[in-house]
Amino acid sequence: MTILFYSETDDPEPWRQAFAEQLPDIGFRVWPDIGDVRAVRYALVWKPKAGLLATLPSLRAILALGAGVDPIIEDASWSRSVPLVRLVDAGLAQQMSEYALYGVLHFHLRMDRYAQQQADGKWNQLPPVLAKDRTVGVAGLGVLGGDCAAKLASQGFRVIGWSRRARSLPGIETFEGEAGWPAFLRHTEILVNFLPLTAETRGLLDRNAFAQLPRGACIINIARGPHVNEADLIAALDSGHLGGALLDVFRTEPLPADHLFWHHPKVIVTPHVAAQTVAELAVSQVIDNIRRIERGESPLGLVDPHRGY
Amino acid sequence: MTILFYSETDDPEPWRQAFAEQLPDIGFRVWPDIGDVRAVRYALVWKPKAGLLATLPSLRAILALGAGVDPIIEDASWSRSVPLVRLVDAGLAQQMSEYALYGVLHFHLRMDRYAQQQADGKWNQLPPVLAKDRTVGVAGLGVLGGDCAAKLASQGFRVIGWSRRARSLPGIETFEGEAGWPAFLRHTEILVNFLPLTAETRGLLDRNAFAQLPRGACIINIARGPHVNEADLIAALDSGHLGGALLDVFRTEPLPADHLFWHHPKVIVTPHVAAQTVAELAVSQVIDNIRRIERGESPLGLVDPHRGY
Repeated sequence: MTILFYSETDDPEPWRQAFAEQLPDIGFRVWPDIGDVRAVRYALVWKPKAGLLATLPSLRAILALGAGVDPIIEDASWSRSVPLVRLVDAGLAQQMSEYALYGVLHFHLRMDRYAQQQADGKWNQLPPVLAKDRTVGVAGLGVLGGDCAAKLASQGFRVIGWSRRARSLPGIETFEGEAGWPAFLRHTEILVNFLPLTAETRGLLDRNAFAQLPRGACIINIARGPHVNEADLIAALDSGHLGGALLDVFRTEPLPADHLFWHHPKVIVTPHVAAQTVAELAVSQVIDNIRRIERGESPLGLVDPHRGY
Repeated sequence: MTILFYSETDDPEPWRQAFAEQLPDIGFRVWPDIGDVRAVRYALVWKPKAGLLATLPSLRAILALGAGVDPIIEDASWSRSVPLVRLVDAGLAQQMSEYALYGVLHFHLRMDRYAQQQADGKWNQLPPVLAKDRTVGVAGLGVLGGDCAAKLASQGFRVIGWSRRARSLPGIETFEGEAGWPAFLRHTEILVNFLPLTAETRGLLDRNAFAQLPRGACIINIARGPHVNEADLIAALDSGHLGGALLDVFRTEPLPADHLFWHHPKVIVTPHVAAQTVAELAVSQVIDNIRRIERGESPLGLVDPHRGY
C-alpha cells in the first residue's frame, strides 16, 4: 500500500518524514515516481495534473493539500466514487484571517491614500473613522470566513456576513441566499470574499455586484480568481466607484505578465499566499483521516461533489 | 469662568457644542478670541503656542487634547504649579492598536516584499511564517502599549514587552529598565514603539539599539519622532540590517519636503494619524475631569511633571 504525493508548490519532505514516523506501513511516493499504480491507495494532492487520478485504479481516497477543491472537482478524470477530502482549517483559518485583517486595516486606515500622499511628498491628515463606524462584509461563513468575521468583530468593526444558507454567528448580522445578496452589498464598505468556487459563485463579483456596493468600497479576494469578473473590476476601479482591491487569487495563475492588475495603482497583487498549507499543522489531520478511512469511518472534511465543497 | 480652546489640528465645534450642553456655566472661547484673560480657568490645548500658558493668570488646569504632553512639558511658559492633565485612552488605544496591528501584519506577511515583487511583475511565493513563530516587541506598556500588546497576543503573535519599571501582563514576557533593554531587543523581530518622550527615552532608538535587533527586524514608531535617531535609522535600513520602518511621527512635523524618508523604499510615512483625538470619545473624559477639579478631586490622567507623563 502506498500514498502518492503530487504538488507543484508544496515541499514533500515534511510529509515524507511524518508518514515514515506515524504510518510506517504505508509507502510514501512522490510523483512521477509512482511505482506500482495498483498499490496507490491514497493520493495526497494539490492541483493534480489532469488525468492523473484516472490512472490510479485502487484509490481509496483523494486527500487535498488545501481547503479549496474546485480544481479536482473540475477534473473529469476524478471518479466520483472515490471520496474527496479537503483540509479543514489546519492553520489556514489563522493565515487567512491575518491576511483579511491586514487588508481591512489597509483600507480602513486609508493606507492606500497615505501611500499616494507619500509618493507625492504630501503631509495631509484625513479625519479618522472609528472601527465601529466601518462596515466589513464577509461573503462565505464556513470555518474560514466565520473565523475571520469573528476576529474582525473582536477588533471592533461592524461586521456583516453573507452565505448561501442561513448562518448564525454571535454579534454578526447575516444575510442569506440570492434574496439577501443586494442588502449585504448595499451595506458593505470593505468586502472580503471567502466563498467556495461553485457554479453559483463563479463570476458573482461582477459589474452588477460592484454597482450595488457603496461608492469607494474596497474588495479583498482570498477565495478563488474566477469569483471575480476581472474586466468589470478594473472598470469599477477606473470609474472611481470602487476604492481599491487586494487580490491574492486570479483567473490565471501565475498572473500573466501583461495583466493590467500588475501595475494598476488601486490594486495590490499577492501571489496566492493568503493560505499556504503548513505541513507542520496539516500532517496530523491527514494522518488522522487515513486512520479513520482504514477503520471504515468517515473522514473529516469529506467533500459533497454536488455542492462542490 | 471660561475655557480656552487652542489647537491647530482639532476642530473646536464638537467641543463647543458639548460644553454648551453639559457645562453651560462655563464660557467656551477659541484662541485667539480669549476675552478676559483673568476669566480663563481651563486651557484645552494641543501643542499650545509657546508663551500662551504664561499669559493666563487664573488657570486651574491645562487639559491636553492628546496622550503625549511633551510639547507642554518642554514649554518654559508652563508654571508647574498648574496641574497638567492628559487624555487617558479616549479612543486612542483602539486607533493606535489598529495602526500597530496593521504595521505588524504588513511586515509579518512580507507585504513590503510582495509590493516590491508586484512593482517588478514577479510572482514568487515566500514560505509562510506562523504568528506563533513571530516575536513582536512592544516598548512602553502603559494604557496604550498594554492594549496593543494584548491585542497582538490575541492574534497569536509571540509578544514581549519592555518598560522602565516592571509590569506584569498576562501571556506577555516582559523586560524592564536599562538592564532588560538588550535582551528585549535581541528577541524582537518587529518593534513597536509606544514610549513616552522623556529625557531617558529621547534618541533611545539609535544605532546601538538597531545593532542589537536581529537582522531584518522592522520598526513601527507611533510614539514621538525624537525617540528615533533618524540618520541612524536610514543607515541601518540602507545597510540591510533593518528590513523596514513604518513611521507616523518625526523629529520635525510636517516632515520637511527634502527629508530622505519621503522616498526611501523601505520607509512608510504617515502624517501623524495613528492616534487622532476623536471629540466624540474625548469630550466626556474632559468634562468629567473639569467636574472633578471643581469638586476638589484629582483628575484622571494627571501628569507627573518630573516623570514627564
